Amino acid sequence: MQILLTNDDGIYAPGIAALKHQIQTLGQITVVAPDIEQSGVGHSITFSHPLRIREVRLNNELIGYGVNGSPADCVKLAAYEIMKKGPDVVISGLNMGANVGIHILYSGTVAAAVEAAIMGFPSIAVSFEITDQYADVGEAAKVAKDVIERIIKHKLPKGSLLNVNIPSRPSNQIKGIKITRQFAHDFKETFDKRTDPSGRAYYWLMGTNKSIHREEGTDLTAVNEGYISITPLRYDLTDHGLYKKIEEWDWSDLRIF
Amino acid sequence: MQILLTNDDGIYAPGIAALKHQIQTLGQITVVAPDIEQSGVGHSITFSHPLRIREVRLNNELIGYGVNGSPADCVKLAAYEIMKKGPDVVISGLNMGANVGIHILYSGTVAAAVEAAIMGFPSIAVSFEITDQYADVGEAAKVAKDVIERIIKHKLPKGSLLNVNIPSRPSNQIKGIKITRQFAHDFKETFDKRTDPSGRAYYWLMGTNKSIHREEGTDLTAVNEGYISITPLRYDLTDHGLYKKIEEWDWSDLRIF
Repeated sequence: MQILLTNDDGIYAPGIAALKHQIQTLGQITVVAPDIEQSGVGHSITFSHPLRIREVRLNNELIGYGVNGSPADCVKLAAYEIMKKGPDVVISGLNMGANVGIHILYSGTVAAAVEAAIMGFPSIAVSFEITDQYADVGEAAKVAKDVIERIIKHKLPKGSLLNVNIPSRPSNQIKGIKITRQFAHDFKETFDKRTDPSGRAYYWLMGTNKSIHREEGTDLTAVNEGYISITPLRYDLTDHGLYKKIEEWDWSDLRIF
Repeated sequence: MQILLTNDDGIYAPGIAALKHQIQTLGQITVVAPDIEQSGVGHSITFSHPLRIREVRLNNELIGYGVNGSPADCVKLAAYEIMKKGPDVVISGLNMGANVGIHILYSGTVAAAVEAAIMGFPSIAVSFEITDQYADVGEAAKVAKDVIERIIKHKLPKGSLLNVNIPSRPSNQIKGIKITRQFAHDFKETFDKRTDPSGRAYYWLMGTNKSIHREEGTDLTAVNEGYISITPLRYDLTDHGLYKKIEEWDWSDLRIF
């Protein structure tokens, strides 16, 4: 099995190394990842500058290919230029930090998996909720491997996409697995406004306390409660409910016609 | 009515100026847009560097606020910091180039509207298909205004989001309006591989010819055929079809439990 492994934390991030180490028994792994951190880049793609592919070696061994672009760029380049045969499965992670709720939309990790799904490859995004209390990436990668192995055994349909989140606790304290839906509400972020030495204002985006949000059945709540969350995602954003409503509107008197 | 106007082509782009000129009769307009072009940034947000808000003036008149961030950042800053009352509607555009099919996922223009919808504001992304044959932005902005005015009259529900695309032709040759779904297939992009003067390879992402894709009822096909396309979008990516299937999988023998 040909596995493409990518991430948004960059090719030198501990998460991708830990995950590669764990899943190397599952197939032939090709690592193609951004050469610098690309967290929060969402589904960005690069067409304003050309992309470069650089072989990354450690102790003279090829560990993967670094790309001066986004996670989605990495998937495109891997499939079209680097891997001789397209991947059988694309894995994006292990991300440092959960990707749940609307953060899915901001996440480069998830975007890489979405890009893979669009191209017709089954894909899995895997993220690890890191907290002050617990951040053992090696242990989380072991858990990730177990989940990935199970998913692959079930033969994920072509072009489907699962978003996996691992809670921030030792594996023997993980409560189980929950199949979830995306928590689809605003996180009520704020800005921390500060003043620089020249007296000019600048703003830091600040997240909110996760504990104020709770909705049974969602990715956010499952992870907060200590479960592994698995959310199937799609890349067709059409709102079919609203579609029917808008179809009934009368457009006949538009000035342009 | 308080209208927030943003885009991804940047605050100095002709599209946002043309659209502002057209819609100024619809309400009080606040322009908050990236200070440089942010095309293809998708739903990226900025937390690695602080954001700045800069008043942008033309002939001593305030035309808007430039932000050193993404379109989604602009919406957050506008709502939380710049506008005293939150916007009644958020308009993102007029984008230079259609945003249809999976390009919706890459588009900063659409991401700004998605961000607004998440925050609970009705929003409209408006893009103009530019071709070698036709690129009259002023005329397209007039068409955009007519469509926006109609949408606002119908009172878009809180948090809903419409993606409008205007075809590349004079308004008297536009065939009508179609309510559409997202064209949800791969565009089969390729890379143009070149060699720099030092002999190193570099890659340009290349789009494909639109004419090979056709699927009745989709945004892509409607615009290609000369219709204004209106697609209602949502920001909950959960795939409920796949959800049911995966719920039936047996997870009991995971090694970690």
